[in-house]
Amino acid sequence: MTRLATLLAFLAFAATPAAAAPPASMVDILAASPPSDWRALDSENTVYMQLPRGTVIIELAPRFAPHHVANIKALIREGYYDGLAIVRVQDDYVVQWADPDEKRSVGAAAATLKAEFDRPFDAAEPFTALPDPDTYAASTGFADGFPAARDPGTGKTWLTHCYGMVGVGRDNDADSGGGAELYAVIGHAPRQLDRNVTLVGRVVRGIELMSSLPRGTEALGFYKTAAERTPILSVKLAADVPPKDRVDLVALRTDSATFAQLLGNRRFRKDDWYKTPAGHIDVCNMPLPVRDAAAK
Amino acid sequence: MTRLATLLAFLAFAATPAAAAPPASMVDILAASPPSDWRALDSENTVYMQLPRGTVIIELAPRFAPHHVANIKALIREGYYDGLAIVRVQDDYVVQWADPDEKRSVGAAAATLKAEFDRPFDAAEPFTALPDPDTYAASTGFADGFPAARDPGTGKTWLTHCYGMVGVGRDNDADSGGGAELYAVIGHAPRQLDRNVTLVGRVVRGIELMSSLPRGTEALGFYKTAAERTPILSVKLAADVPPKDRVDLVALRTDSATFAQLLGNRRFRKDDWYKTPAGHIDVCNMPLPVRDAAAK
Repeated sequence: MTRLATLLAFLAFAATPAAAAPPASMVDILAASPPSDWRALDSENTVYMQLPRGTVIIELAPRFAPHHVANIKALIREGYYDGLAIVRVQDDYVVQWADPDEKRSVGAAAATLKAEFDRPFDAAEPFTALPDPDTYAASTGFADGFPAARDPGTGKTWLTHCYGMVGVGRDNDADSGGGAELYAVIGHAPRQLDRNVTLVGRVVRGIELMSSLPRGTEALGFYKTAAERTPILSVKLAADVPPKDRVDLVALRTDSATFAQLLGNRRFRKDDWYKTPAGHIDVCNMPLPVRDAAAK
Repeated sequence: MTRLATLLAFLAFAATPAAAAPPASMVDILAASPPSDWRALDSENTVYMQLPRGTVIIELAPRFAPHHVANIKALIREGYYDGLAIVRVQDDYVVQWADPDEKRSVGAAAATLKAEFDRPFDAAEPFTALPDPDTYAASTGFADGFPAARDPGTGKTWLTHCYGMVGVGRDNDADSGGGAELYAVIGHAPRQLDRNVTLVGRVVRGIELMSSLPRGTEALGFYKTAAERTPILSVKLAADVPPKDRVDLVALRTDSATFAQLLGNRRFRKDDWYKTPAGHIDVCNMPLPVRDAAAK
C-alpha cells in the first residue's frame, strides 16, 4: 500500500512525519490547544436540519445578520421548514432548500426583511485579519468563527461566500428575502455574491450530506421532478432539543493564540510533502475547526 | 412560482431581462460569438473516462505537462486505467482514482517522471491576464483554455488548482508521480497545491459524476470498503474512438474577443439582481465555456 499510504499523507491536514524536529502539524497544534481557546456553540444559534441520511448542523451569525437570524429562528420555532425539501443542487455552486409548493405561510415571522448585506464595524471587535491580498476585498479575515471581509475605507464588514456558508435567497429587490428560502455553498467560493446576499451562518457539520446529492438537471440545478428532491424531515434549534439529544460542539476561537498558530501553519506549509509553500492563504481555504466537546 | 422563478434568475448565468437596453448577458455574448472564437478539442488530447453513470471528459494540457500527458496517453492506450476505481472522495477537496490493489504494471509507460510543476513562459505565448489581484500568484489568467498563473519575476508559468482541474498524485519526492494515480478538484480551489503537483488537464464535462459521489469515511476521504468504490469501466482517448462515437466539443478560445467580452461581463455584473458588482474576478470563478460542436 505504499502509494495509497503516501497519498494519505499527500494533501493531508497533518504533515507526514519528518526526519527530525518536524514543525508542528495542524493535528499537533489542535492537540496542544488549551480548552480556553475553544468556545461551545451557542444552543440558541445552532440549527439541526434533519435529512434522511443524517443531520446538517448550522451555526448562525447573529452579529452579522441579527434580523434575519431572529426571523429564521422564529420560522424554525413555528415548524416552517419541517417537511420542506432541497429543491436545487447546482454543481460547483449551491444547494437550496425551500417550500416547493410555495404555499406555506410564514406565520408570525416576516416574509421579507431589510437586507443585511454588510454592517458597520467597530475597530474594537475581534477580527483576525489575513496579511494576504484578496481578489474581492480590501481586507479579509475571521470574526466570531466566520470568514469575513472589511473595508476600512467604508467602515463596513461582511461575511464572505466560502464553502459551507448559508445565505438567504431573494428576488431582485435587495429587501425581498426573509429566510424562508436558504442555500449553502458547495463549490468554489462565489465571492461575487458577497454584499449581494444576506449571509446568516455556516454549516459546521454534515455539509457532505448536501454536497454529495445528485445535481438537478433543470436550469440552475433545479430538480425536474418532485421525486428527486431530498425531504427536510425537521429543522430545530439546539436549545429546543433535550440536552441528551444535542450534539455538543466546540469551535476554535478565531481570535485565539491557537488559531493564530494554525494560520501560520496553513499559510506556510513545512513538511516532507510540500516543495513550494504558498506563503499565503485565501480566506476560504482556512480550516475553521469545530469538534465534539468531548474531544477537548 | 414567483419565488422559485426568481431564484432561477438569482445566481443565474444569464441576467434577468432588464426593463430597457439590458447589458449583454453571458448567454447573449456566447450566442453572438463567431465560430472562429471556438476551437475543436483535439481528439489526441481528449480523454473519455467511462463511469457507471456516464462519461467524464477531460482535456489534457500538453503545453504545461508534456511528459506527463504523453505518459498518461501511453497508459490509456495500454488499457492501464480500465477496471481501476475511484478510491477516495474527500469533501471540498478531491476525487482520486487509482489501482486499489496497486498490482497493475504500468507496462511500457514510465512509473515516475520528473515533476512538471511549472515551466518557463514565452512572452509571445497567448496568456489572457486578469487585472485583479490574486492571493497566491503575481499574475493569473488563462492559457490554452486553462486557468493559469505567471510570475514575471521568475519567468515561470503554471496551471492553477481550480474546480475540475486534474492532477498527478505523487509521494514525498517531487519526481515520484507519473500519472498512474490522478485526482480532480471538487471543492474550493486548493491553491496551496499550485507548483507542488503536476497538473495535466481539466474536466470539461461530467465533473458532477464525480463531485456527487458519496464521501469516503476513512481518513482523507478514502473509502472503507471495496464495495463503496466507483469502478472505472474504461478510459480512452477520443482519437481512438470511432468518430461516430465521439462527443464533438468546442471550447471558447481564451485569447478571443468573445472571451474578453465575457470576462468583462463576469467581472462587473450588471443586471437587475446584482446590487454591488464585484468589479473583480478570481481565476477560479471564470467560466471556461465548452459546448457541443453542433451548438455553434
